[in-house]
Amino acid sequence: MTTTQHETEIAASPDVPTITITREFDAPRELVFRAWTEPDLVARWMGPRSVTMNITQWDCRRGGSWAYSAGREGEDGFATFYGSFHDVRAPERLVQTFTWEGAPDSVSLETMTLEELPGGRTRCVGVSVVDSFEVRDAILSSGMDTGVIEGFEQLDELLETLETSR
Amino acid sequence: MTTTQHETEIAASPDVPTITITREFDAPRELVFRAWTEPDLVARWMGPRSVTMNITQWDCRRGGSWAYSAGREGEDGFATFYGSFHDVRAPERLVQTFTWEGAPDSVSLETMTLEELPGGRTRCVGVSVVDSFEVRDAILSSGMDTGVIEGFEQLDELLETLETSR
Repeated sequence: MTTTQHETEIAASPDVPTITITREFDAPRELVFRAWTEPDLVARWMGPRSVTMNITQWDCRRGGSWAYSAGREGEDGFATFYGSFHDVRAPERLVQTFTWEGAPDSVSLETMTLEELPGGRTRCVGVSVVDSFEVRDAILSSGMDTGVIEGFEQLDELLETLETSR
Repeated sequence: MTTTQHETEIAASPDVPTITITREFDAPRELVFRAWTEPDLVARWMGPRSVTMNITQWDCRRGGSWAYSAGREGEDGFATFYGSFHDVRAPERLVQTFTWEGAPDSVSLETMTLEELPGGRTRCVGVSVVDSFEVRDAILSSGMDTGVIEGFEQLDELLETLETSR
C-alpha cells in the first residue's frame, strides 16, 4: 500500500458538549461522500478492523433512517446502533442522529461536512453534539477512538481501491 | 373556559447550548402524548394562535420523519419546518430533529419527556440542543416564545375538549 497515513484529530470542546473529528483523505469529495452514504461501501470501512458490520437498515435520504450491528464473528453480543438521517446534501453534508441501543437515552446529533482540498483531496469534519458534558465525556471514554482511527485507515484503503477501479 | 393557566418556563442554560421548556398540563400523560404525536391533534394546537398549521409529512415512529408549514391565511411566506423522529416511546418520550427551511444548517435535537403528576396531571419537559451558543441564542431571539406559550394555551383547550369527549 502506498496510502499516506493522515492524522485523525478527535477534539472535545471545553465550551460546548461536542466531539469534533477531523481527517483528510487523498480522494475527491464525490468519492468520499459515496463511501459515507452507500451501504455496501460503509460496511467495508466503518468501525475497528476486528469488527464485522451488519447493516440492517439504510435509507440514506432526508427523513430516512439507518441501523447496524457490529461485533466479532464467533462472539456473542453484537452491539446495535440506530438513528435517522436528518439531511443528506451530496456531496458535502450529512446530518444524522446516533444512539447505541445499550444507552437509549443518550442521543448524538452528528453533522459531517466534506471540504474540497487542492490536488483532489478532501477534508472530513464531523461534529457530534449531545445535551450534557457527562454524556459527551462518557462517549469519549468508551474506546470510540480506536473505531474512528482504524475505520479511517480502512476508508483510505477502500478509497484507493475505488480510485484505481474507476 | 375553566382551564387553569399554567406557567411556561423557557430556560437557556449558561453551561450548554440548550433551551429547556417546562410546562404542566391538567390532563393524564397518555392524552398529552397523543396530542404530541397524532397529526390531526398536533395541527390543532402547535404554534401561535394566529397561525395555520399545514402538516405535509407525519410518520411518528422511530426512524420516521415530519414536515409542516405554518403561516397566516392570505399572507405569502408560510414558513416550512422539517425533521426526523429519532425515538418514539409512548407515553413518555419523543426525540426528534428540527430545522427551519430558512436556516438549513441549523439543526436542533429535541427531547420531550412527559412525567406523571398526582391528580391526573402531566409535566412536559422539552430540551433542545444545538452545537453552538450562537445558534441557540438566535433561536431564543426569533420570537419562538410566543409560539410556545400560545401553543400550550391551545393545547390546554384541546386537552379539555378531549377529556370531556372521552
